Amino acid sequence: MSGQLKNKNVPRATIQRLATYVQVLETFARDGVEVISSNPLAVACGVNGSQVRKDLAYFGEFGVRGVGYNVASLISSITGALGVDREWRMALVGVGNLGRAILNHGDFRARGFNIVGIFDCDPFKIGEIMHGLEVRCTDDLKEHVIHDNIEIGIITTPPERAQRAALHMVEAGLTSILNFAPARINVPDHVHVEYVDFFRHLYTLAFDQSHGHEEVSLE
Amino acid sequence: MSGQLKNKNVPRATIQRLATYVQVLETFARDGVEVISSNPLAVACGVNGSQVRKDLAYFGEFGVRGVGYNVASLISSITGALGVDREWRMALVGVGNLGRAILNHGDFRARGFNIVGIFDCDPFKIGEIMHGLEVRCTDDLKEHVIHDNIEIGIITTPPERAQRAALHMVEAGLTSILNFAPARINVPDHVHVEYVDFFRHLYTLAFDQSHGHEEVSLE
Repeated sequence: MSGQLKNKNVPRATIQRLATYVQVLETFARDGVEVISSNPLAVACGVNGSQVRKDLAYFGEFGVRGVGYNVASLISSITGALGVDREWRMALVGVGNLGRAILNHGDFRARGFNIVGIFDCDPFKIGEIMHGLEVRCTDDLKEHVIHDNIEIGIITTPPERAQRAALHMVEAGLTSILNFAPARINVPDHVHVEYVDFFRHLYTLAFDQSHGHEEVSLE
Repeated sequence: MSGQLKNKNVPRATIQRLATYVQVLETFARDGVEVISSNPLAVACGVNGSQVRKDLAYFGEFGVRGVGYNVASLISSITGALGVDREWRMALVGVGNLGRAILNHGDFRARGFNIVGIFDCDPFKIGEIMHGLEVRCTDDLKEHVIHDNIEIGIITTPPERAQRAALHMVEAGLTSILNFAPARINVPDHVHVEYVDFFRHLYTLAFDQSHGHEEVSLE
């Protein structure tokens, strides 16, 4: 069993599938499954077995031929190889309903993704305590990013404030942004933005529903 | 200007990009932009101009050569062609923090995606009023789906309850599910599930941050 990354050029789609594998493996672990082979894992993830084996091959040899993968070891090997099995300190900008929900989302903390600073530009919110954290003025983001070793910024503002929040993050030196606001943001090339876009999913469902669920080809 | 769908086999990736175009066009509209050509639209969406033109071509001829697209018309043409420019009635199962945040998310309603029923299996929550809706027992989902013409189910339960919520939805006749719970669910083939998966995005950011932001190839 090895958790070393053999090749740094892992396709983004592979990393995304690995996140799904971890989620599914955690479900199996919760159900008491100790060993699993690639085919049932693939079925549960909605991909095929050869895809699972190919994705895992980026990280060396997992599993024992004819026996399968040890569930607990595979989870720690994948998260270790991805380099995500440590604490990630995050700042959240925008403490409306969605921001509060993210703040209360126990699964983030359980996987090491800790929100350690919360920010807003609304003077009525600044100073309020939420989930043990004091809401700070977004203008003070840079100071806190440096002081608290923050590496990831989360935007949960309304769409019209998302760009301003992103600029604050870039100025603060953050290079990784998770954007929940339904707006695209412009940042320098060295900054990586991931969009959690509810409408992409709703439009896809609505389109399929409108057009009778015929097979839609995958690009 | 035409909003007719020329070909029903629109790739899923195109539909997802069209959702982004709508979002970006709405931002332009908010900023007072009335006409836009494909290249600045493409830049704002993070794709290239020929991709935008190719995606829009599925819906016939938009825009005037050398002049560009009328922003307001393009928004209504895209949503019309996708068939999403009507009311979508949705049921939400799981009224914890995330469920409440989704319920309060004004952008859903603004785009016609209305949550008209909220459900939970916690007897302490049943009967509570949230956002003008009474929390119902999940066992009563089927009755409400039929009575209220509900077409989309939203799962915002904890991960260990997601499968049960999905089964209730399938039994109630829903064929479109948006799953926010960090768990994969098993449903019959005719049911379409879209996953809003925060961890896919966090893992991608964390991986890039761990591996020095080198170029990751896109599959």
